[in-house]
Amino acid sequence: MQGAKAVSEVLASDYTVELLCATPQFLDEFYRKDKAKEVVETSEKELTALGSVEANNAALAVVRMMPPGQPRLSPDTYTLVLDDIRDPGNLGTIIRTADWYGIRQIVASEETTDVYSPKVINATMGSFLRVPVYYTSLDTFLASAKVPVYGAFLDGKDVHRMEFGEGGLLVIGNESRGISPAVARRVTDRITIPRYGKAESLNASVATAIVLDNLRRR
Amino acid sequence: MQGAKAVSEVLASDYTVELLCATPQFLDEFYRKDKAKEVVETSEKELTALGSVEANNAALAVVRMMPPGQPRLSPDTYTLVLDDIRDPGNLGTIIRTADWYGIRQIVASEETTDVYSPKVINATMGSFLRVPVYYTSLDTFLASAKVPVYGAFLDGKDVHRMEFGEGGLLVIGNESRGISPAVARRVTDRITIPRYGKAESLNASVATAIVLDNLRRR
Repeated sequence: MQGAKAVSEVLASDYTVELLCATPQFLDEFYRKDKAKEVVETSEKELTALGSVEANNAALAVVRMMPPGQPRLSPDTYTLVLDDIRDPGNLGTIIRTADWYGIRQIVASEETTDVYSPKVINATMGSFLRVPVYYTSLDTFLASAKVPVYGAFLDGKDVHRMEFGEGGLLVIGNESRGISPAVARRVTDRITIPRYGKAESLNASVATAIVLDNLRRR
Repeated sequence: MQGAKAVSEVLASDYTVELLCATPQFLDEFYRKDKAKEVVETSEKELTALGSVEANNAALAVVRMMPPGQPRLSPDTYTLVLDDIRDPGNLGTIIRTADWYGIRQIVASEETTDVYSPKVINATMGSFLRVPVYYTSLDTFLASAKVPVYGAFLDGKDVHRMEFGEGGLLVIGNESRGISPAVARRVTDRITIPRYGKAESLNASVATAIVLDNLRRR
Protein backbone atom coordinates (compact mmCIF):
# COMPACT_ATOMS: atom_id res chain seq x y z
CA MET A 1 0.00 0.00 0.00
CA GLN A 2 1.29 3.43 -0.88
CA GLY A 3 -0.06 6.94 -0.36
CA ALA A 4 -2.19 8.63 2.28
CA LYS A 5 -5.60 7.48 1.03
CA ALA A 6 -4.79 3.80 0.50
CA VAL A 7 -2.78 3.41 3.71
CA SER A 8 -5.34 5.24 5.88
CA GLU A 9 -8.06 2.95 4.47
CA VAL A 10 -6.05 -0.19 5.13
CA LEU A 11 -5.42 0.97 8.73
CA ALA A 12 -9.19 1.26 9.19
CA SER A 13 -9.80 -2.24 7.75
CA ASP A 14 -9.46 -5.79 9.07
CA TYR A 15 -6.21 -6.40 7.19
CA THR A 16 -3.10 -7.14 9.22
CA VAL A 17 -0.44 -4.46 8.70
CA GLU A 18 3.01 -6.00 9.09
CA LEU A 19 5.01 -2.80 8.62
CA LEU A 20 4.04 0.86 8.39
CA CYS A 21 6.49 3.50 7.18
CA ALA A 22 5.00 6.96 7.49
CA THR A 23 5.73 10.63 8.10
CA PRO A 24 5.14 11.98 11.62
CA GLN A 25 2.19 14.02 10.27
CA PHE A 26 0.52 10.91 8.83
CA LEU A 27 1.04 8.95 12.05
CA ASP A 28 -0.45 11.81 14.10
CA GLU A 29 -3.56 11.85 11.96
CA PHE A 30 -4.23 8.20 11.14
CA TYR A 31 -2.31 5.83 13.39
CA ARG A 32 -3.92 4.16 16.39
CA LYS A 33 -1.89 2.04 18.80
CA ASP A 34 -1.11 -1.61 17.89
CA LYS A 35 -2.68 -1.34 14.42
CA ALA A 36 0.65 -2.27 12.76
CA LYS A 37 3.17 -4.87 13.93
CA GLU A 38 6.07 -2.50 13.26
CA VAL A 39 6.08 1.26 12.71
CA VAL A 40 8.96 3.30 11.24
CA GLU A 41 8.91 7.09 11.03
CA THR A 42 10.22 8.25 7.66
CA SER A 43 10.71 11.39 5.59
CA GLU A 44 8.87 12.09 2.31
CA LYS A 45 12.13 11.57 0.43
CA GLU A 46 12.67 8.10 1.92
CA LEU A 47 9.07 7.12 1.17
CA THR A 48 9.34 8.10 -2.46
CA ALA A 49 12.60 6.14 -2.78
CA LEU A 50 11.03 3.05 -1.18
CA GLY A 51 7.85 2.88 -3.24
CA SER A 52 6.93 2.31 -6.86
CA VAL A 53 4.82 5.45 -7.31
CA GLU A 54 6.09 8.77 -8.58
CA ALA A 55 5.87 10.61 -5.26
CA ASN A 56 4.65 9.63 -1.83
CA ASN A 57 4.43 12.24 0.90
CA ALA A 58 2.59 10.27 3.54
CA ALA A 59 2.89 6.54 4.10
CA LEU A 60 3.67 3.03 2.86
CA ALA A 61 2.44 -0.20 4.42
CA VAL A 62 3.26 -3.87 4.05
CA VAL A 63 -0.02 -5.72 4.40
CA ARG A 64 -0.69 -9.43 4.88
CA MET A 65 -2.83 -10.92 2.11
CA MET A 66 -6.19 -12.27 3.21
CA PRO A 67 -6.41 -16.09 3.33
CA PRO A 68 -8.22 -17.15 0.15
CA GLY A 69 -11.52 -18.50 1.59
CA GLN A 70 -14.55 -19.36 -0.50
CA PRO A 71 -17.08 -17.21 -2.33
CA ARG A 72 -20.63 -17.46 -0.97
CA LEU A 73 -23.49 -17.56 -3.43
CA SER A 74 -27.03 -16.60 -2.53
CA PRO A 75 -30.10 -16.20 -4.75
CA ASP A 76 -30.56 -12.51 -3.88
CA THR A 77 -27.10 -11.08 -4.49
CA TYR A 78 -24.97 -10.61 -7.58
CA THR A 79 -21.41 -11.89 -7.96
CA LEU A 80 -19.08 -10.75 -10.72
CA VAL A 81 -17.18 -13.52 -12.55
CA LEU A 82 -14.05 -12.61 -14.54
CA ASP A 83 -13.00 -14.98 -17.31
CA ASP A 84 -9.34 -14.17 -17.85
CA ILE A 85 -9.00 -10.39 -17.40
CA ARG A 86 -5.32 -9.71 -18.15
CA ASP A 87 -4.86 -5.95 -17.87
CA PRO A 88 -4.09 -4.76 -14.30
CA GLY A 89 -5.73 -1.38 -14.91
CA ASN A 90 -8.90 -3.13 -16.08
CA LEU A 91 -9.00 -5.44 -13.07
CA GLY A 92 -8.50 -2.55 -10.64
CA THR A 93 -11.17 -0.44 -12.33
CA ILE A 94 -13.57 -3.41 -12.34
CA ILE A 95 -13.08 -3.87 -8.57
CA ARG A 96 -13.69 -0.13 -7.99
CA THR A 97 -16.82 -0.16 -10.16
CA ALA A 98 -18.11 -3.35 -8.49
CA ASP A 99 -17.72 -1.63 -5.12
CA TRP A 100 -19.68 1.42 -6.42
CA TYR A 101 -22.54 -0.87 -7.49
CA GLY A 102 -22.64 -2.83 -4.24
CA ILE A 103 -21.13 -6.08 -5.55
CA ARG A 104 -19.57 -7.85 -2.54
CA GLN A 105 -17.32 -10.45 -4.18
CA ILE A 106 -15.60 -11.33 -7.44
CA VAL A 107 -14.75 -14.81 -8.69
CA ALA A 108 -11.91 -14.90 -11.23
CA SER A 109 -10.41 -17.56 -13.49
CA GLU A 110 -6.93 -18.69 -12.51
CA GLU A 111 -5.50 -16.87 -15.57
CA THR A 112 -6.89 -13.52 -14.42
CA THR A 113 -4.15 -11.05 -13.45
CA ASP A 114 -3.04 -10.98 -9.78
CA VAL A 115 -5.16 -8.65 -7.64
CA TYR A 116 -2.19 -7.93 -5.36
CA SER A 117 -0.01 -6.34 -8.05
CA PRO A 118 0.64 -2.63 -7.33
CA LYS A 119 -1.07 -1.47 -10.57
CA VAL A 120 -4.27 -3.32 -9.70
CA ILE A 121 -4.28 -2.12 -6.08
CA ASN A 122 -3.74 1.51 -7.17
CA ALA A 123 -6.54 1.36 -9.75
CA THR A 124 -9.01 0.03 -7.17
CA MET A 125 -8.69 3.30 -5.17
CA GLY A 126 -9.13 1.32 -1.94
CA SER A 127 -12.04 -0.84 -3.12
CA PHE A 128 -9.99 -4.07 -2.93
CA LEU A 129 -10.50 -3.80 0.85
CA ARG A 130 -14.25 -4.27 0.40
CA VAL A 131 -14.50 -6.56 -2.65
CA PRO A 132 -12.47 -9.79 -2.32
CA VAL A 133 -11.37 -11.62 -5.48
CA TYR A 134 -11.47 -15.44 -5.34
CA TYR A 135 -9.38 -17.29 -7.94
CA THR A 136 -10.72 -20.65 -9.03
CA SER A 137 -11.48 -22.88 -12.00
CA LEU A 138 -14.55 -21.22 -13.52
CA ASP A 139 -15.76 -24.37 -15.23
CA THR A 140 -16.06 -26.25 -11.91
CA PHE A 141 -17.40 -23.19 -10.07
CA LEU A 142 -20.11 -22.48 -12.65
CA ALA A 143 -21.08 -26.15 -12.97
CA SER A 144 -22.22 -26.13 -9.32
CA ALA A 145 -23.90 -22.68 -9.37
CA LYS A 146 -27.68 -22.81 -8.90
CA VAL A 147 -28.39 -19.20 -9.89
CA PRO A 148 -28.83 -17.48 -13.29
CA VAL A 149 -25.54 -16.92 -15.12
CA TYR A 150 -25.55 -13.74 -17.22
CA GLY A 151 -22.79 -13.27 -19.77
CA ALA A 152 -21.89 -10.33 -22.03
CA PHE A 153 -21.67 -11.31 -25.72
CA LEU A 154 -22.07 -9.51 -29.03
CA ASP A 155 -25.24 -11.45 -29.91
CA GLY A 156 -27.32 -11.55 -26.70
CA LYS A 157 -30.46 -9.84 -25.50
CA ASP A 158 -30.40 -6.02 -25.36
CA VAL A 159 -29.28 -5.09 -21.83
CA HIS A 160 -31.70 -2.12 -21.91
CA ARG A 161 -34.63 -4.56 -22.29
CA MET A 162 -33.35 -7.26 -19.95
CA GLU A 163 -35.27 -7.93 -16.76
CA PHE A 164 -32.65 -8.94 -14.25
CA GLY A 165 -33.64 -11.09 -11.30
CA GLU A 166 -32.75 -10.55 -7.66
CA GLY A 167 -29.37 -12.19 -7.95
CA GLY A 168 -27.02 -14.34 -9.94
CA LEU A 169 -23.63 -14.34 -11.62
CA LEU A 170 -22.43 -11.85 -14.21
CA VAL A 171 -19.58 -13.12 -16.41
CA ILE A 172 -17.17 -10.72 -18.15
CA GLY A 173 -14.76 -12.11 -20.73
CA ASN A 174 -11.16 -11.55 -21.74
CA GLU A 175 -10.15 -8.21 -23.34
CA SER A 176 -9.59 -9.61 -26.81
CA ARG A 177 -11.20 -13.07 -26.92
CA GLY A 178 -14.31 -12.45 -24.79
CA ILE A 179 -15.85 -15.31 -22.82
CA SER A 180 -14.16 -18.66 -23.48
CA PRO A 181 -16.21 -21.50 -25.03
CA ALA A 182 -16.02 -23.65 -21.84
CA VAL A 183 -17.44 -20.81 -19.74
CA ALA A 184 -19.95 -19.75 -22.42
CA ARG A 185 -21.61 -23.20 -22.12
CA ARG A 186 -22.50 -22.34 -18.51
CA VAL A 187 -24.14 -18.99 -19.34
CA THR A 188 -27.95 -19.13 -19.00
CA ASP A 189 -28.72 -15.56 -20.17
CA ARG A 190 -26.70 -13.93 -22.98
CA ILE A 191 -26.80 -10.13 -22.88
CA THR A 192 -25.50 -7.44 -25.22
CA ILE A 193 -24.80 -3.74 -24.82
CA PRO A 194 -26.49 -2.05 -27.78
CA ARG A 195 -24.20 -0.15 -30.14
CA TYR A 196 -25.11 3.21 -31.68
CA GLY A 197 -21.85 3.94 -33.50
CA LYS A 198 -18.92 2.18 -35.14
CA ALA A 199 -16.45 0.91 -32.52
CA GLU A 200 -16.04 -2.88 -32.77
CA SER A 201 -16.10 -3.50 -29.04
CA LEU A 202 -15.92 -1.89 -25.62
CA ASN A 203 -13.14 -1.98 -23.05
CA ALA A 204 -13.77 -4.78 -20.50
CA SER A 205 -14.06 -2.47 -17.48
CA VAL A 206 -16.42 -0.17 -19.40
CA ALA A 207 -18.64 -3.12 -20.41
CA THR A 208 -18.73 -4.32 -16.79
CA ALA A 209 -19.81 -0.86 -15.60
CA ILE A 210 -22.60 -0.56 -18.17
CA VAL A 211 -24.05 -3.98 -17.36
CA LEU A 212 -23.88 -3.27 -13.59
CA ASP A 213 -25.65 0.07 -14.09
CA ASN A 214 -28.44 -1.64 -16.04
CA LEU A 215 -28.69 -4.43 -13.50
CA ARG A 216 -29.16 -2.02 -10.58
CA ARG A 217 -31.69 0.38 -12.14
CA ARG A 218 -35.32 -0.18 -11.24
CA MET B 1 0.29 3.60 -35.74
CA GLN B 2 1.44 0.14 -34.85
CA GLY B 3 -0.01 -3.32 -35.38
CA ALA B 4 -2.16 -4.96 -38.04
CA LYS B 5 -5.54 -3.69 -36.86
CA ALA B 6 -4.63 -0.02 -36.34
CA VAL B 7 -2.55 0.28 -39.52
CA SER B 8 -5.12 -1.47 -41.72
CA GLU B 9 -7.79 0.91 -40.39
CA VAL B 10 -5.66 3.99 -41.03
CA LEU B 11 -5.00 2.78 -44.61
CA ALA B 12 -8.78 2.62 -45.13
CA SER B 13 -9.30 6.15 -43.73
CA ASP B 14 -8.81 9.70 -45.05
CA TYR B 15 -5.58 10.18 -43.10
CA THR B 16 -2.40 10.80 -45.08
CA VAL B 17 0.15 8.04 -44.51
CA GLU B 18 3.67 9.45 -44.85
CA LEU B 19 5.54 6.19 -44.32
CA LEU B 20 4.44 2.57 -44.10
CA CYS B 21 6.78 -0.16 -42.81
CA ALA B 22 5.18 -3.57 -43.12
CA THR B 23 5.78 -7.25 -43.70
CA PRO B 24 5.20 -8.62 -47.24
CA GLN B 25 2.17 -10.55 -45.90
CA PHE B 26 0.58 -7.35 -44.51
CA LEU B 27 1.23 -5.44 -47.75
CA ASP B 28 -0.33 -8.26 -49.80
CA GLU B 29 -3.47 -8.20 -47.72
CA PHE B 30 -4.04 -4.50 -46.94
CA TYR B 31 -1.99 -2.22 -49.18
CA ARG B 32 -3.49 -0.53 -52.20
CA LYS B 33 -1.34 1.53 -54.58
CA ASP B 34 -0.46 5.13 -53.68
CA LYS B 35 -2.10 4.95 -50.26
CA ALA B 36 1.23 5.80 -48.55
CA LYS B 37 3.86 8.28 -49.70
CA GLU B 38 6.66 5.83 -48.93
CA VAL B 39 6.54 2.07 -48.37
CA VAL B 40 9.31 -0.06 -46.84
CA GLU B 41 9.14 -3.84 -46.61
CA THR B 42 10.35 -5.05 -43.22
CA SER B 43 10.69 -8.18 -41.12
CA GLU B 44 8.78 -8.80 -37.87
CA LYS B 45 12.01 -8.39 -35.94
CA GLU B 46 12.71 -4.96 -37.42
CA LEU B 47 9.12 -3.84 -36.74
CA THR B 48 9.29 -4.80 -33.09
CA ALA B 49 12.62 -2.98 -32.73
CA LEU B 50 11.18 0.17 -34.39
CA GLY B 51 7.98 0.49 -32.37
CA SER B 52 7.01 1.10 -28.78
CA VAL B 53 4.79 -1.96 -28.35
CA GLU B 54 5.94 -5.31 -27.03
CA ALA B 55 5.71 -7.17 -30.35
CA ASN B 56 4.57 -6.15 -33.80
CA ASN B 57 4.30 -8.78 -36.50
CA ALA B 58 2.59 -6.75 -39.20
CA ALA B 59 3.02 -3.03 -39.78
CA LEU B 60 3.90 0.43 -38.54
CA ALA B 61 2.81 3.69 -40.15
CA VAL B 62 3.74 7.36 -39.79
CA VAL B 63 0.53 9.31 -40.22
CA ARG B 64 -0.01 13.05 -40.72
CA MET B 65 -2.13 14.62 -37.98
CA MET B 66 -5.42 16.07 -39.11
CA PRO B 67 -5.52 19.90 -39.28
CA PRO B 68 -7.34 21.03 -36.12
CA GLY B 69 -10.56 22.51 -37.58
CA GLN B 70 -13.58 23.49 -35.55
CA PRO B 71 -16.21 21.43 -33.77
CA ARG B 72 -19.73 21.81 -35.16
CA LEU B 73 -22.61 22.00 -32.74
CA SER B 74 -26.18 21.18 -33.68
CA PRO B 75 -29.29 20.89 -31.50
CA ASP B 76 -29.87 17.22 -32.37
CA THR B 77 -26.48 15.67 -31.71
CA TYR B 78 -24.39 15.12 -28.60
CA THR B 79 -20.81 16.27 -28.19
CA LEU B 80 -18.55 15.05 -25.41
CA VAL B 81 -16.58 17.75 -23.54
CA LEU B 82 -13.51 16.73 -21.52
CA ASP B 83 -12.40 19.06 -18.75
CA ASP B 84 -8.78 18.12 -18.17
CA ILE B 85 -8.57 14.33 -18.61
CA ARG B 86 -4.93 13.53 -17.81
CA ASP B 87 -4.58 9.75 -18.09
CA PRO B 88 -3.81 8.52 -21.64
CA GLY B 89 -5.60 5.21 -21.05
CA ASN B 90 -8.70 7.07 -19.93
CA LEU B 91 -8.68 9.39 -22.94
CA GLY B 92 -8.26 6.48 -25.37
CA THR B 93 -11.02 4.47 -23.69
CA ILE B 94 -13.32 7.51 -23.72
CA ILE B 95 -12.77 7.95 -27.49
CA ARG B 96 -13.49 4.24 -28.09
CA THR B 97 -16.65 4.39 -25.94
CA ALA B 98 -17.81 7.62 -27.62
CA ASP B 99 -17.44 5.88 -31.00
CA TRP B 100 -19.53 2.90 -29.73
CA TYR B 101 -22.30 5.30 -28.66
CA GLY B 102 -22.30 7.26 -31.92
CA ILE B 103 -20.68 10.45 -30.59
CA ARG B 104 -19.04 12.17 -33.59
CA GLN B 105 -16.73 14.67 -31.91
CA ILE B 106 -15.01 15.50 -28.64
CA VAL B 107 -14.06 18.95 -27.39
CA ALA B 108 -11.25 18.93 -24.83
CA SER B 109 -9.68 21.53 -22.54
CA GLU B 110 -6.14 22.55 -23.47
CA GLU B 111 -4.82 20.69 -20.40
CA THR B 112 -6.31 17.38 -21.56
CA THR B 113 -3.65 14.82 -22.50
CA ASP B 114 -2.50 14.68 -26.16
CA VAL B 115 -4.68 12.44 -28.32
CA TYR B 116 -1.71 11.61 -30.57
CA SER B 117 0.38 9.95 -27.85
CA PRO B 118 0.90 6.21 -28.54
CA LYS B 119 -0.89 5.12 -25.33
CA VAL B 120 -3.99 7.08 -26.24
CA ILE B 121 -4.01 5.88 -29.85
CA ASN B 122 -3.62 2.24 -28.75
CA ALA B 123 -6.45 2.48 -26.21
CA THR B 124 -8.83 3.92 -28.84
CA MET B 125 -8.61 0.62 -30.82
CA GLY B 126 -8.93 2.60 -34.07
CA SER B 127 -11.77 4.88 -32.92
CA PHE B 128 -9.60 8.03 -33.10
CA LEU B 129 -10.07 7.77 -36.89
CA ARG B 130 -13.81 8.39 -36.47
CA VAL B 131 -14.02 10.69 -33.43
CA PRO B 132 -11.88 13.86 -33.73
CA VAL B 133 -10.75 15.63 -30.56
CA TYR B 134 -10.71 19.45 -30.70
CA TYR B 135 -8.58 21.22 -28.07
CA THR B 136 -9.82 24.62 -26.99
CA SER B 137 -10.54 26.90 -24.02
CA LEU B 138 -13.67 25.34 -22.56
CA ASP B 139 -14.79 28.53 -20.85
CA THR B 140 -14.98 30.42 -24.16
CA PHE B 141 -16.41 27.43 -26.02
CA LEU B 142 -19.19 26.80 -23.49
CA ALA B 143 -20.02 30.52 -23.18
CA SER B 144 -21.12 30.53 -26.82
CA ALA B 145 -22.93 27.16 -26.80
CA LYS B 146 -26.69 27.43 -27.29
CA VAL B 147 -27.53 23.84 -26.32
CA PRO B 148 -28.07 22.12 -22.94
CA VAL B 149 -24.84 21.47 -21.07
CA TYR B 150 -24.99 18.29 -18.96
CA GLY B 151 -22.28 17.73 -16.38
CA ALA B 152 -21.51 14.75 -14.13
CA PHE B 153 -21.29 15.73 -10.44
CA LEU B 154 -21.78 13.92 -7.14
CA ASP B 155 -24.88 15.99 -6.28
CA GLY B 156 -26.91 16.16 -9.49
CA LYS B 157 -30.10 14.57 -10.74
CA ASP B 158 -30.18 10.73 -10.88
CA VAL B 159 -29.06 9.76 -14.39
CA HIS B 160 -31.59 6.89 -14.35
CA ARG B 161 -34.43 9.44 -13.99
CA MET B 162 -33.03 12.09 -16.33
CA GLU B 163 -34.89 12.83 -19.53
CA PHE B 164 -32.21 13.73 -22.00
CA GLY B 165 -33.09 15.92 -24.96
CA GLU B 166 -32.18 15.35 -28.61
CA GLY B 167 -28.75 16.86 -28.27
CA GLY B 168 -26.32 18.93 -26.27
CA LEU B 169 -22.98 18.80 -24.55
CA LEU B 170 -21.90 16.28 -21.96
CA VAL B 171 -19.03 17.44 -19.71
CA ILE B 172 -16.73 14.95 -17.95
CA GLY B 173 -14.30 16.27 -15.34
CA ASN B 174 -10.74 15.57 -14.29
CA GLU B 175 -9.87 12.20 -12.69
CA SER B 176 -9.29 13.59 -9.20
CA ARG B 177 -10.79 17.09 -9.12
CA GLY B 178 -13.90 16.59 -11.26
CA ILE B 179 -15.31 19.50 -13.29
CA SER B 180 -13.50 22.79 -12.59
CA PRO B 181 -15.46 25.71 -11.07
CA ALA B 182 -15.16 27.83 -14.25
CA VAL B 183 -16.66 25.05 -16.37
CA ALA B 184 -19.23 24.09 -13.72
CA ARG B 185 -20.76 27.59 -14.04
CA ARG B 186 -21.66 26.76 -17.66
CA VAL B 187 -23.42 23.47 -16.84
CA THR B 188 -27.21 23.77 -17.21
CA ASP B 189 -28.11 20.21 -16.04
CA ARG B 190 -26.19 18.51 -13.22
CA ILE B 191 -26.42 14.73 -13.32
CA THR B 192 -25.24 11.98 -10.97
CA ILE B 193 -24.67 8.26 -11.37
CA PRO B 194 -26.44 6.62 -8.41
CA ARG B 195 -24.25 4.65 -6.05
CA TYR B 196 -25.31 1.33 -4.52
CA GLY B 197 -22.11 0.47 -2.63
CA LYS B 198 -19.13 2.15 -0.98
CA ALA B 199 -16.56 3.31 -3.56
CA GLU B 200 -16.03 7.06 -3.31
CA SER B 201 -16.03 7.70 -7.04
CA LEU B 202 -15.87 6.09 -10.47
CA ASN B 203 -13.06 6.08 -13.01
CA ALA B 204 -13.56 8.90 -15.55
CA SER B 205 -13.90 6.61 -18.58
CA VAL B 206 -16.36 4.39 -16.69
CA ALA B 207 -18.47 7.41 -15.71
CA THR B 208 -18.49 8.62 -19.33
CA ALA B 209 -19.68 5.21 -20.52
CA ILE B 210 -22.50 5.00 -17.99
CA VAL B 211 -23.82 8.47 -18.83
CA LEU B 212 -23.65 7.75 -22.58
CA ASP B 213 -25.52 4.48 -22.11
CA ASN B 214 -28.27 6.29 -20.19
CA LEU B 215 -28.40 9.07 -22.73
CA ARG B 216 -28.92 6.68 -25.64
CA ARG B 217 -31.53 4.39 -24.10
CA ARG B 218 -35.14 5.06 -25.07
